[in-house]
This record gives sequence, structure tokens and C-alpha cells, in this order.
Amino acid sequence: MSVETVVMKFGGSSVADLEKVKEVAQIIEQRKKNMSVVVVVSAMGKTTNSLIDKAYNLSERPNLREMDMLVATGEIVSASLLSICLNEMSVPAVSLTGFQAGFNSYGKHGSNKIEDVDVTRLKRHLDEEHIVVVTGFQGMNPEGDITTLGRGGSDTSAVAIAAKLGAKCEIYTDVDGIYSADPRIHKGAKKIDVVTYEELMEMAHLGANVIEPRSVEIAERYGVEMEIRLNDGVTPGTRVVGGKDMEKTTLTNVSKLDEVLLVSMSDKTGSSAKITECFLELAQRNVNIDIISQTIVNDQTEISFTSTEASKHEIEDVLESKEIDYRMKTDVSKVSIVGTAMRNQVGIAAKVFEIFLEEDIRFYEISTSEISISYVVDTENTTRVIELLADAFNI
Amino acid sequence: MSVETVVMKFGGSSVADLEKVKEVAQIIEQRKKNMSVVVVVSAMGKTTNSLIDKAYNLSERPNLREMDMLVATGEIVSASLLSICLNEMSVPAVSLTGFQAGFNSYGKHGSNKIEDVDVTRLKRHLDEEHIVVVTGFQGMNPEGDITTLGRGGSDTSAVAIAAKLGAKCEIYTDVDGIYSADPRIHKGAKKIDVVTYEELMEMAHLGANVIEPRSVEIAERYGVEMEIRLNDGVTPGTRVVGGKDMEKTTLTNVSKLDEVLLVSMSDKTGSSAKITECFLELAQRNVNIDIISQTIVNDQTEISFTSTEASKHEIEDVLESKEIDYRMKTDVSKVSIVGTAMRNQVGIAAKVFEIFLEEDIRFYEISTSEISISYVVDTENTTRVIELLADAFNI
Repeated sequence: MSVETVVMKFGGSSVADLEKVKEVAQIIEQRKKNMSVVVVVSAMGKTTNSLIDKAYNLSERPNLREMDMLVATGEIVSASLLSICLNEMSVPAVSLTGFQAGFNSYGKHGSNKIEDVDVTRLKRHLDEEHIVVVTGFQGMNPEGDITTLGRGGSDTSAVAIAAKLGAKCEIYTDVDGIYSADPRIHKGAKKIDVVTYEELMEMAHLGANVIEPRSVEIAERYGVEMEIRLNDGVTPGTRVVGGKDMEKTTLTNVSKLDEVLLVSMSDKTGSSAKITECFLELAQRNVNIDIISQTIVNDQTEISFTSTEASKHEIEDVLESKEIDYRMKTDVSKVSIVGTAMRNQVGIAAKVFEIFLEEDIRFYEISTSEISISYVVDTENTTRVIELLADAFNI
Repeated sequence: MSVETVVMKFGGSSVADLEKVKEVAQIIEQRKKNMSVVVVVSAMGKTTNSLIDKAYNLSERPNLREMDMLVATGEIVSASLLSICLNEMSVPAVSLTGFQAGFNSYGKHGSNKIEDVDVTRLKRHLDEEHIVVVTGFQGMNPEGDITTLGRGGSDTSAVAIAAKLGAKCEIYTDVDGIYSADPRIHKGAKKIDVVTYEELMEMAHLGANVIEPRSVEIAERYGVEMEIRLNDGVTPGTRVVGGKDMEKTTLTNVSKLDEVLLVSMSDKTGSSAKITECFLELAQRNVNIDIISQTIVNDQTEISFTSTEASKHEIEDVLESKEIDYRMKTDVSKVSIVGTAMRNQVGIAAKVFEIFLEEDIRFYEISTSEISISYVVDTENTTRVIELLADAFNI
């Protein structure tokens, strides 16, 4: 292709209703004037949740293969409607399902991973001057079954296509970029113009709710130029770039993740082997385990870990099959401070401990990485904790 | 396969909501006890119409390829939900899209025809003792695009699978079989226990609203044993059998088709060639033309034909491009009397003329086939006409 190609990704809130679909079509039309355009869309608004509700009405634990088949229709509807709208505007467009767009995937239904994207067909449509509207979040496995890449997988779809086409990738959303804290919670939050892949990945993992972390990993690996933009198509957003040693002296972000599940297990005599088996089994089932910590009280080892509320049933299954003594806690959230500055500064954890003590805020877990610190706190305290941390560190 | 196979087809009203999906799953479970089962489903209730409305909100004439992509999701949702429900009942089931079920199709988007059904995958799932739930009404063309077989195409899907598997085909619906007239309109209507393919085909073409005529053609060609059944899974329905010379002495059915479009064209000097071009163009565009008639008044030829209201725009396009002088009439319906008895009896048309005259009912067109007579009348008169004809011919 002689002209530059851009992959534009629109999430569910950007195409929540037919009026918004029309607005998105206009943004795309502008972009098409001097670029070759691939669009990746999520399902409209609450469509996915509504489909999931129907399945749970019929079954307590719906068959996962069938769930993928069901849920994948959400993106097919939004992609075809957007394409209908573009064609009405005399902008030739063609919509493709994940399978038609060449997404070969593997793994567990509901959280498939992309093996490869065969962009042959996609390129053919681009060569014919068509806008290609691809359903995000889905693919097909070697058995020929429809799969989904898990929640937020549309970002991953978009970046994967951009990587294969050597295109830039624009993630459109309802905020105009990445902020130092959630602007709805902390009024003083500042927009960040440039962020590194690494920082963005930490923010994503920590629930900044802006982008799927896997997609940032792929972007970094393939050097895909990314931008997080407001879906007005005009306002400049936050650019995502490479580099680990940007001269930054402050922390960049405070974020939170809700619906955390906190699990505590007691390691009585002989159960240590069982707990190891347990983690192996959970890993095999692709259950996401986040923070793991261990304390010893009166010769008894207490092991805790966090996961998501959505994994509750599966974790119960595993723990009960291994006859482990456990407790679960919900209504907790994870609040995190992120920034490359973290690795150059000392005393951040200490300062946070001080704040929590002064303000009498309880936390259940702490976890640190090279560029972040996270705390598990009661969900009802989340807003106050974000305010306190943002103020304390001038974020 | 050692056990007998049955293809069970459930229309949109049979799976209109989640409660009905559960009922259908129970009927299937019963059948599975001693048979190998393939299920073909339509979209739930009003889903298809709701998707079409969305498209028309975005475009006056939605791109047909994209419409197929959009509309096909309706059946994917009902098939996967039904499969989730069956699996919940510990009845192993797997849902397949038209493409996955091997439906290769060709022709115009929105009214594709089945080239062939490659049942390899379907048979594999049956061999594994799975119930296979296939999305009706859809396939994939040689370009790899999703296609639909047109309204009512689920019947065709079901019969096509039955033909390829050498299975029997059961069409489940909200009436317990074929009636001599619509029981909602004519109280004295009688259920028919056995009907020939030929008679059923006439009834279907004439809008008895029970089954798609194309499906009956395929059933006849491949000798597929069919039954039209109430979706309670218990009541015996109407069996469809071969044979043209059944000893019947009465007419079997009065039926109606609403939303007919009546088009009249005036053939002024020199426009006869244009009218011929017109019919060629309409045929090329796959516009369905039903009754054609011609009269000559004062040296001027009047040609009329009927089609469906849905084809109005397309017909206007063609007639205007050929600069033909035309008039259109809507709010008319076609009422038909059907039966193999027709060919052995004389005077039926005469008797109908007499009734229409006596009752002062106007009709716009008349058409006869070997086993039917049809009249185009004002829609508001339809119920009265059916009553009168049913009484007159003791149907």
C-alpha cells in the first residue's frame, strides 16, 4: 500500500447507540481522506452484558464454547451497522468477523490468545480502497470454533492488526487521553501527553480502565505507534512511545481496580503440598492470580492471593477439590501508584504507610513492582485513598 | 450412524423468549432418547425485525452484504442460547453457524440459494453423540461472505440438512399442522393429516404462512419425509408425502398473502420494448414477480403485475430508469384456493366470480395454476373473502 495505514479502535461506549455510530462514521470519513483505514469495533454499549445475562438465565455455568459463539455476535452487529452507515455516506466499507479478518487463536474459551493474524484478505480490501471494519475481541481456533479474547480484547485485536500491517494504532475512548488519576474521582488530575509502553502497561494492569495490558505488550514488541484519543477525532490524545529512561521525576498515575477477590488459605500440617497443587491447577485453568503474600502466625502459614470476583466459582471449585481451609473476601479494590520515577525514589511505601495510619485506613495486601505499589483496601474507601495519594505525591 | 436421525426445525415464535427456549430444549431432550438429533433454529421472536430497523435508521437502502452480516447474528444468538440450555440439562450440544455447518451458497445477498451442504463436520459431532444446533437461514458464498437465504430460509436449511443426512425433517410451529383455512380467520377450518408435496408447495407460495415453498421443493426432490408439528412435541401434525394422484375430491385450502404490491404500466407507442427490458432488469435483480396480466383498452395495452411491498423501491428504480408510465397500488392481498381437486373440477372460477358479484367485492387480478386460483383483493376484504370461499366450497 502506498498511503499510510491507520487502525482506529472504537470501544463500546463510542458506539453505544445509533447516533454515536453516525458520529464515529464521520470521524472515520475524515481520516480516510489521506489514509488507508482499518476500524476495530467493540459491541455497542451494554450489548455484551445483556447477552451474558441471557446465558446465565439459562445456566448457572454456561458452556464456555457456546458463550463465545453467543457473545461474539455483539461485535458483528456493531461492525455491520457501522459499515452500513459508512456505505450510506458513499464511503465504501466492508465488515469482517474475527475469523474473516484472519484471527487465528488458541487457548481457553473466553480468554483466547492470538496465534497469528493472516491479513491477506484484509489487505485485499484495503487495496480496493475499502475501509475494513473488523469485529474486535474475537477469532477462530484450530477446531473452527468461534473464540473471544476476553474482556477488553478489542484493544488487542487493533494492535495485532496494526503490528501486522506496519500501521499506527489509535485507541478512541470517552476521555481525551491518560490522566495522572481518574479525573472523575480526583479533580486535580492532569493529562499526560506522552507515556512509555512500560508505564502504560502498569497502569493498564492496575485498572486505569483505559486499555488492555496485553495490547500494550504487543505494541511494544512490534514497535506499534499508539495514541489514546478522545472520540471527537480532533483533540490530541496521549501518545505511547518506547524508552525506559525518560527524564521523569514524578509519579504519573494513581488508579484503581474494583471487584477484587481476596482469598486466604491456612496451611495446616501437610497442606503445603496441597496449596502448591492448588496454584498449579489454577494456572492450568487460566485463573488470573494477582498479588500473592504469605505470613506466619503461631507456626501456621497464612497464604493470601487476589483474583477477580468473576473467578470466584472456579477458585471455589479448585480449593474445595483439594480440601483446603479457605476464606474469601469481596467488596475490596486495588489502588495503585505507578511511574518510572518509582525506581529512583525511596520512601514512597513508607509515606503511604504513614498516610494510612494517620487516616485510619485499613489495607489487606500490599504489592510492589519496579514501577508501582498497590494496596488492597475496602472498596468504600477507594475514592478517599486516591484523593489522599494524589495530594501527597502531587500527581 | 446406526440410529435414525431427525432434523427438528424451530421457528422464531417457538424460541421467542428464554422460557420458550427452555421448553424447546425439553422437546429436544425427549427426541434425543432414541434418535440422533440436528436442530435448526430461527432468530428469537422479533430479533430480525429489530436488527433491520436499526439498519434502516442508518441508511435508506442498506448495503445488502452488510445486512446479511447483521441479520445472521439473530440465529447465532438463538442457537448458542439453546445449546447453553441443553448443556445445562446435561444433554451435550454444540451450535454451528451456517458456515460452520457447511452451507455453501450463491446468488444475491439477502436471497442466497444453497449450492450444497458439506455435512462432514455435522456428522462428526453427531458421531460424538452431540446434538447439533444449526443456525437456520444462512450460509457463506465463495467470496467467504456471510449470506442469508431470505425470509423463512430456516425451513430450507432444515430440509437441506435432512436431505444430505437421509434424515426425516420435523417443522415445529405454533399451530398443530396444516389447516384447510387459517383457523384464526375461519372457525370451521379442519386439520389436514396428510398432504402432498405439490399441494403444500402451492399453499406455501400462496402465503399459508406455514412453510417456505423452496424447502418443500427440496423435500420432494430428495424424498425427505416431513411433518409439520405443534411445538409441544406431543400432538401429531400434518405429514407431507409424495404422490400426485391421491383420491381427493375436495379443495384443501384457502390462504392469503398480505402486503402485495400491484403495479400497472401503460404501453404507449414504442414502449413495448421498454417494458420487456424492464422485466429482464427486474429478473436480473431477483425481484420476485408473481401474477402478470395484460388487457387492451382503446388500442392501448395495460400490463399489470404483482410483487411484494418490500420490493417497491427497487421496482420504482427500474421503471423510472426506463421512463415507463406506471401506477402502484398497496393495501391489497392475494387470496387463493388450492387443491389437487382443482384439476378434476370445472366451474370453480365461475362460482367465485358469481360470489364476488353477489357480494360486491372487487378484485384486481386473477391467476390460475393447475391446482390453484388466486385473486388480488383489497386487504380490508380479505377475511370476508376467505369466509365466503370456505363456506362455498365446504373447505
